[in-house]
Parts: sequence; C-alpha cells; structure tokens
Amino acid sequence: MTNEKMTLAEAYNRCDYPVPGNGKRTVRMLKEALERVEGETASDFYGTGPLIENFQAKLADYLGKPAAVFFPSGTMAQQIALRIWCDRRGLMKVAYHPLCHLEIHEEDGLKELHRIEPVLLADKDRLIALEDVRGLGEDIACLLLELPQREIGGQLPSFEELEAISAYCRGRGIALHLDGARLFETLPYYGKTAAEVCALFDSVYVSFYKGIGGIAGAILAGDAALTERSKVWKRRHGGDLIALYPYILSSDHYFEKRLPKMEQYYRGAVELAELYNGCRALSTRPAVPVTNMFHVHASVPKERLETALVAVYGETGIGLTANVRPIEEHSCSFEISIGDLYETVPKDLLHRAFERLNELLS
Amino acid sequence: MTNEKMTLAEAYNRCDYPVPGNGKRTVRMLKEALERVEGETASDFYGTGPLIENFQAKLADYLGKPAAVFFPSGTMAQQIALRIWCDRRGLMKVAYHPLCHLEIHEEDGLKELHRIEPVLLADKDRLIALEDVRGLGEDIACLLLELPQREIGGQLPSFEELEAISAYCRGRGIALHLDGARLFETLPYYGKTAAEVCALFDSVYVSFYKGIGGIAGAILAGDAALTERSKVWKRRHGGDLIALYPYILSSDHYFEKRLPKMEQYYRGAVELAELYNGCRALSTRPAVPVTNMFHVHASVPKERLETALVAVYGETGIGLTANVRPIEEHSCSFEISIGDLYETVPKDLLHRAFERLNELLS
Repeated sequence: MTNEKMTLAEAYNRCDYPVPGNGKRTVRMLKEALERVEGETASDFYGTGPLIENFQAKLADYLGKPAAVFFPSGTMAQQIALRIWCDRRGLMKVAYHPLCHLEIHEEDGLKELHRIEPVLLADKDRLIALEDVRGLGEDIACLLLELPQREIGGQLPSFEELEAISAYCRGRGIALHLDGARLFETLPYYGKTAAEVCALFDSVYVSFYKGIGGIAGAILAGDAALTERSKVWKRRHGGDLIALYPYILSSDHYFEKRLPKMEQYYRGAVELAELYNGCRALSTRPAVPVTNMFHVHASVPKERLETALVAVYGETGIGLTANVRPIEEHSCSFEISIGDLYETVPKDLLHRAFERLNELLS
Repeated sequence: MTNEKMTLAEAYNRCDYPVPGNGKRTVRMLKEALERVEGETASDFYGTGPLIENFQAKLADYLGKPAAVFFPSGTMAQQIALRIWCDRRGLMKVAYHPLCHLEIHEEDGLKELHRIEPVLLADKDRLIALEDVRGLGEDIACLLLELPQREIGGQLPSFEELEAISAYCRGRGIALHLDGARLFETLPYYGKTAAEVCALFDSVYVSFYKGIGGIAGAILAGDAALTERSKVWKRRHGGDLIALYPYILSSDHYFEKRLPKMEQYYRGAVELAELYNGCRALSTRPAVPVTNMFHVHASVPKERLETALVAVYGETGIGLTANVRPIEEHSCSFEISIGDLYETVPKDLLHRAFERLNELLS
C-alpha cells in the first residue's frame, strides 16, 4: 500500500505518535478501571446501593449542588433536566445555541419525546451573550448554556458575562442549565472551582468520557426536588438500569486520574494551536484555546489537506487528526482535544511535522 | 444478634446455601465476563463497529429475525418497538396484559413519552387468551404478549394458543410483539427453538440479566425497517451510548454460559415447586412450573412466614428467599427463579429445611 492510496484514517492509525486524545478506545480502558475494585463489591441496584449513591454524593459535593444522579448519557440527562424545568414553569419552551447538542445530535428527542420547543439564541458562529438573552421576545422556562461551546471550537464567555446572564435569568424566574459536557476542561482558564461555576446555574450536567476519558456516563446535579424527579424520568427513558456500575466505576477511576491534568491539557492545547497558526492556510478557532480543545480551519479543499497530512504522517510518524470535514468547496476543518498523549510526543518530531505541513500547503 | 431480631434479608445473606438465582450481583460478574477478552479489542462506537454488530447479527440469527439492535434496557427497547408499530399503523393504541412491565414498572413512560394508549387485556390473575384478543372492541396497532407472564408466576399459553393468536393478529394487520424478557427460559417446555417461537411474532425483545444472568442489556429483533428506525429512537431516548460494550460483552459471555442450562433450571424449578407444594399453607403458581420460575403463595401473614423462614435458615443454612411481600392481611407471596445455585444445594439439607418449614407453619 503506498501512501498516496492510504486514507487519512489508515495513515493516522499507523502513526507512532498520535497527538490528540488519550489513546484508542479499547476494552483495556474498562479493565484498567476495574483493576483495583474488589470482586465482592456489590452492584448498584436500580439506582440504589452504596456504589451509585457514594459516587452521586461525591459529584454533588464537587459540583456544589445538593444532589446528583448518575445517567447512562448526557442526552438522557439533559432532556430530562429541561423537561423538569418546563413542567415547573408550566411552559414547554427553552432557549439554547443553534449548535446545541440537543439541536443537532439527538434526533430531536427533546421535541419528539418531550414536546419542548427550543428557541435558538445567537448565531451559529458565536457564543450566546447577555444581549441575546435580554432580546428574547418571549418567555422561556429554561436557558441552556454549553461551556465550552464545542461546535465553535470550545469557546467560553468571560466569567463576568456568565454572572450577568445568571443574574438576569434569576431575576426573571428562568432556570439556567449548564451543559457541562466539558466543564472540567474550563476550570484552568476560569481559575474557578467547579462549584464556583456551577453556583451560577440551577442544574448542571457533566460527562465522563470527554476530557475525563471514561467509557460513558453522566451526572445531573441540582436541587433535591429536581434530582428526585429526574429519577422518575430516567426510568421512563429506560435509563434506570439494574446495574450502571461499569460506567460508574470507570467514571470514578478516570475522574480521579485525569481531573488533576486539566491544566496540563489546556497548556498543551495553547501550545499546539500556536503550531497550527504558524502554518500556511491553517488557523485555529479560538485563536488561543481556552480549554483543551480547538478547531483547525483550513483554507484549502479537504482532499488537498488530507494528501498533505498523509505525507506528513508517513514521513514523521506524527498523527495530527484522523478525519477532516469539508466546510465549503475550498475549505475544511477538524477538531482537536488534548489528552494524555500530547506529552508523549517528541517535540522535535512535532516541529518537523509542522514544518513539512507548512511546506506542503504552500 | 439473635435470630428473632434478624430481618429475613439478613438471615438469607448468612445462609450457606441460597437456593434460587446465580449468586450475588457483584463486580466479579463483570470481571469474569472480561477475563478472556483481549484488552486491544476496540470499543463499539455509537452503535457501530464489530463488537456490537457481530453480537446483533448473532442474536438476529438465533432469534430467526432479519436484524437486531442492542439496547441498554428492555424498557427502552419495548417502548420503542410499540412506538414504531403505532407510527406504521397511524394509531397510537396497543394492547397488553394488566400486569405488563410497561404498565406497572416503567413510570408510564409509554404514555408520558410516546402518548400511546394501552388497552388492558384479560384479568390480572390469568393469561391473555385468543378470546380476549377476538373480543377487543377497538382497533389496535400492536398486541404485546409476555412469555412467560412473570407477574403471575411465569405462566405460559400453549404453543397452539400462541399460533392461533398470531394468525388472528396477522389476519387483521395487528403487529404482534414479544416481551421475551424470559424467552430463553420457555424453550425447554415448548420444545421449540427460539426462532420457532419468534416466527409467530413481528418483533421480539429479549433480556440478558434474567435467566442469562448478565449485568444489563437487551436485544430488539425484527425486520430491518423496524431495527433501523429503532436506532433513531434509541438516540432520542439517550440510549445510543458511545460505548455499550460492558453490557454487550457480559451479555454474550453469560448467554454462552447459561443458555445450555435452561433445561436444568426448568427441571430444578419443577422439583423445588413440589417441595413447596408439600408444605402446609404454601402453594406455587403455577402448580407445576413451565419455566425456571414460579411464585409461592402463603395463606399466613407475612410476619408469620418470615419468622418461620428465619428459623429455618438459622437451623439449616438453606436460604429460600430474601423477601416476602404481603398480598392481603393474612396472605403473602414471593418469587423464585432457579439458576446456577440450585444444583449446589445438598438435597438432604434442602429436604430438612422443608420439613422444618412445614412444622413451623402447622
């Protein structure tokens, strides 16, 4: 097989030094998480038992909320949170960003299952600002903010802007929900504890397989009335499994392992983005990352970028991305999230890879 | 702690020989399932990849259906199956038994999430018969039959009755859905393959943590249009996890391990029921089990039965049940499912336990 015929994903898989992420998602992840767990440890049982209750209490405490419930997925947790806020307010209307996970990745579950109408706030290429919320022409039960806003490269509003939005919503009885799929990743930039960020929100969802790098699973935290009600909806959705412990144990293991590394991941993202921005035809969004993630935009056609990347991977063994998506005819982009692997990459090879990429795109 | 002060569950947990089930639900179950799985095995990825696709194909083949989809839970799989049948027929109405899982254990998810109206067929204490289906005063999109009917002790209609109901439904364009949570357990009695039973149904759900004794997980099988559509609803419900492999690998492991033992479990249930029926004040439902399960009904108050059981457990080390539920003031019942443990129980001790129970209830 010659390099010219190889797909980008194939070439990436042969690299000695993949740059983003924590490594391949294999069964080893689960085996590692179970290594130090005693075989005699009792399973959770339909949401009860020390295994699930202790983890929920630990996360409630960490997030600074009265209570927390473990869910198999954020899709389930967030639809349910919004449903509860809508029911409390007696109004089946919420607001969120046009590129919100619920709007583009969930097959319209919120609308189809819960008959909740979303109002799309702000433009696709920028964050929701206080002015957008103020400008809402209609009443809503809940506003969802995603920190960071993943689909635009992981951007963040200033903490002051967040405080202002929170105060505005509280003044109007609008519940503020945090899509914190990548909340842990925002903390180094904000210089805040998770609880300090979450204090601005009435309910919070966090994920354990983004920066934390676990297998799957989510926590929904808020007041006890919300979390208790969420258990009823969790059962209705089919998420109240007899045993969720494979996800709980792995979430806990990787939470302990990677939470202390968020600062390191963030610094790595800033450093790597600088290399991308030094490359002809490439630029990152944001220009300077504020979390462990960013998007790379290329002002060349997808095929041209892929050809250049395959050549670089073959020459250096450095793997930058496994896939590229077209934007328009002459531009494309890809997403980078920094994890454990970045610090294992030899810096001289990495620089050589970017020098070659720069040459090939010139 | 004296025996008099011990709760039934405490006394049961101290027994050397628990009689029903496969043993305690602990993390060891997952460790065992992973023992022979290579760490390098790639995770499934949002419903794709060989790990999930191969298991789905294996179960589709076993159940004799064109396609199958793995779900985290039966609650999710069954609501979705019924929703798809209702959408196809353009009629949001189904029929099932008054003690159907969807009616009593799912917090009304079918009604709350899918706005499907159930018609309750037959009485609470008997099976649905062809006459009940014929007597339906209104059109329905789907009839759900549960084999065996768990809440009445695991009773089964004759295979001929099933065939007649199936033919009747097909003649009227009513989809027939199988709640086969315990389908594997019915096969020795019917003397049929799973595919032969499933051929009478348009869609089938099976569970991997009842007789199979896995951790959690379910399969929904049917025509390819149904299974493809079910994936859209699975995502809406929040069940399309990035990785379901902890449940898939354990389902597969215990499927291979316990499927060949269904005949043994069934024979054990028949034998054990005879012991219960020989005991004063106790009788089983059904009188002669047709699967690995049955219910024990006692014509004494719950407290009196519990006191007798705690004494028997203490004297013999035989554990018969960990909990008893009251029916009326002077009667109570409990459920028995036979698994791996039954054949490890010394028969002489078991007989001694029943002799003592008989004395204590006299």
